[in-house]
Order: sequence, then structure tokens, then C-alpha cells
Amino acid sequence: MAGYHGSTDQYLTRLRRIEGQVRGVQRMISEDTYCIDVLTQISAIQSALDSVALCLLEDHINHCVVDAAKRSDEEGREKVQEATHAIARLVKS
Amino acid sequence: MAGYHGSTDQYLTRLRRIEGQVRGVQRMISEDTYCIDVLTQISAIQSALDSVALCLLEDHINHCVVDAAKRSDEEGREKVQEATHAIARLVKS
Amino acid sequence: MAGYHGSTDQYLTRLRRIEGQVRGVQRMISEDTYCIDVLTQISAIQSALDSVALCLLEDHINHCVVDAAKRSDEEGREKVQEATHAIARLVKS
Amino acid sequence: MAGYHGSTDQYLTRLRRIEGQVRGVQRMISEDTYCIDVLTQISAIQSALDSVALCLLEDHINHCVVDAAKRSDEEGREKVQEATHAIARLVKS
Repeated sequence: MAGYHGSTDQYLTRLRRIEGQVRGVQRMISEDTYCIDVLTQISAIQSALDSVALCLLEDHINHCVVDAAKRSDEEGREKVQEATHAIARLVKS
Repeated sequence: MAGYHGSTDQYLTRLRRIEGQVRGVQRMISEDTYCIDVLTQISAIQSALDSVALCLLEDHINHCVVDAAKRSDEEGREKVQEATHAIARLVKS
Repeated sequence: MAGYHGSTDQYLTRLRRIEGQVRGVQRMISEDTYCIDVLTQISAIQSALDSVALCLLEDHINHCVVDAAKRSDEEGREKVQEATHAIARLVKS
Repeated sequence: MAGYHGSTDQYLTRLRRIEGQVRGVQRMISEDTYCIDVLTQISAIQSALDSVALCLLEDHINHCVVDAAKRSDEEGREKVQEATHAIARLVKS
């Protein structure tokens, strides 16, 4: 069971809002909206995605990583390494 | 006329793909997919948004900023400052 | 005892190298080096800092967070929240 | 002549401060300071580097890019592409 299992509805609500924001950018482009305003909206979407990702990460560490560490140090280290690689991708994206 | 005016269709194609990726993350969440796989997909969406934003920025500088600078130094500096603020938001998001 | 305690020397070596890179950028500026080359060097420093931070984070989760979670769920959640805030600052910086 | 030529002293002052901050992190590591406090300081250095880079970028576009565009459209596009690649490295680092 995924670490975020208890908050599925909240995540889906946030992601549908982000989907709507992406469609909003499409409308801006179709209407030849000034570039800077389009860029501002893309940054807003990036921030919204960042915060969804950070919540998922917190849920993941609280559940999947901590549970694995309680089972064995080795399992724990593997999960921590996997989570750190995911964090690296977030930092770089 | 926006700096990206000549490439509207390409931008819309890329943004529709991103919209589909966001829906894909919704499906992953609904199907209780492992957290790290969801995070990987969110990072992929952020990279796709980054590259759309960078192309928009290049179009904007090539057209709106350069045209303003050719009209007057002052107009040019204002447009460059505005673009730099947009870049700062991208760097921070 | 800090989570990175066993790797202090490696961290100090990496940080001294970064210190040297910052001095290198000062030299480039003093020598009126082309802007793009200076920017490239700053990005290299940021990537080096990112990787130091990610290693510190991995050590921190492996030790401080996991140890706290083993003591009590509540302590664990507090440490995970604290770590997530640190990750958020990394993602935004 | 580099686009930042008129502000060399200000840039050197900011970079020396950043150099001092990196040495500060070394001290924190030597004193076994709590990981989160070290991470917070690294994020502060990243933000300081971001703002130096953004100022350099603004100077570069105002001078090198605009001057090239005034000489010829082709030279202008080359400089804009080069600047966009530098921005991409900043966004990814």
C-alpha cells in the first residue's frame, strides 16, 4: 500500500487543478497572450507540482521508508537511497 | 504579437502532452502506484515544463526584448529586467 | 551526534573544493571573463553544493530520522516533517 | 568588455561573502552541527549564488546580447541561444 494511500482524494483534487492550469496555459498561447504572463503561469504550475511532490515524499518517508528501516537496517538504507535519488530528480527538475 | 507567435501549434502540442502526463499521474494515484514511480513521473512533467518555458523565453528575448532595445535603450532595459524576473521565478520554482 | 559524523573528512574535502571554485569565479570576474563562462562556473558550483546537500540528507534520514522513528512514531513524524522542509528549501534554492 | 564590467567590485564583494559562507559550512561540519542547520546554510548559499547569476544574466542580456542584436539579427539570435543555454543550466542546477 502506497505511503499516500490515506490522502488519495486530496492528491487527485490538487492534480486536477494542475491539469486545469495546464489547459489554461494552452488557452493563453492560443490567444497570443504576452510571453511573460505565460511564463508566470508556468512557474505557478511548477510550484504546485513541487508542493504535491514534497507531500508525496513526506508520506513516503513516513511510511515506506520508516517501515522498511524497522524491518531491517539494510532495507532501510535501500529505501533511503531510493528516496534520495527521487529528491535529486526533484532538485534538478 | 507575442514572441512565440510563429510556433503556437508546436507549443500547444507540447502542452497537450503535458496535460496528458498530469492525467497519467492522477491514474497512478488512483491505482495506488508506488510513491517513487509517481515522483519520477512528476519530475518528468517538470522537465517538460522547463523546456517549454525556456523555448518561450528564447522567443521572447529574440523578439519582444530585442525589438524594444532597438526602439530605445530605456525600453530595452525595462524588458530585460522583466525577463530577468521571469527567469528568477523559473529558477526558484 | 550528526548523521554525517562518520564522513566529516570527505565533506570537508568537497567543501574546500567548492570554496576554491568560488575564489575561481572571483578571479574570472577580476579578469573580465566573458559572462557566459562565469555563469557556467556558477552552475557547476551549484551542482557541487546540490550533491553535498543530497549526501547530507541521505545521512540525516538514515540516522537521525530513522533513529527517531524507532524511538516513537511521533518523534519520527516530527523529524520527517523537518527533513521535508529542508528538502523544500533545496528544491526552491 | 564583459557586460558586468561596471559592477566588478559589487560582484567581488558578494562572491567573497559567499566564500565566507562556504567556510562557515566547513566549520559547522567540523563542529558536528545538526544536519538540518547545515542544510539550511547550504540553501542560503544557493540562493546567494542564484541572485549573483541572475544579475550577471541581466547585465549580459543588456549589453552583450542587445549589442549583438543591433549589429545583426543573426548575431543576436546566436547570443540569445547561448544565453538560453546558460539559463537552462541555472534552472537545472
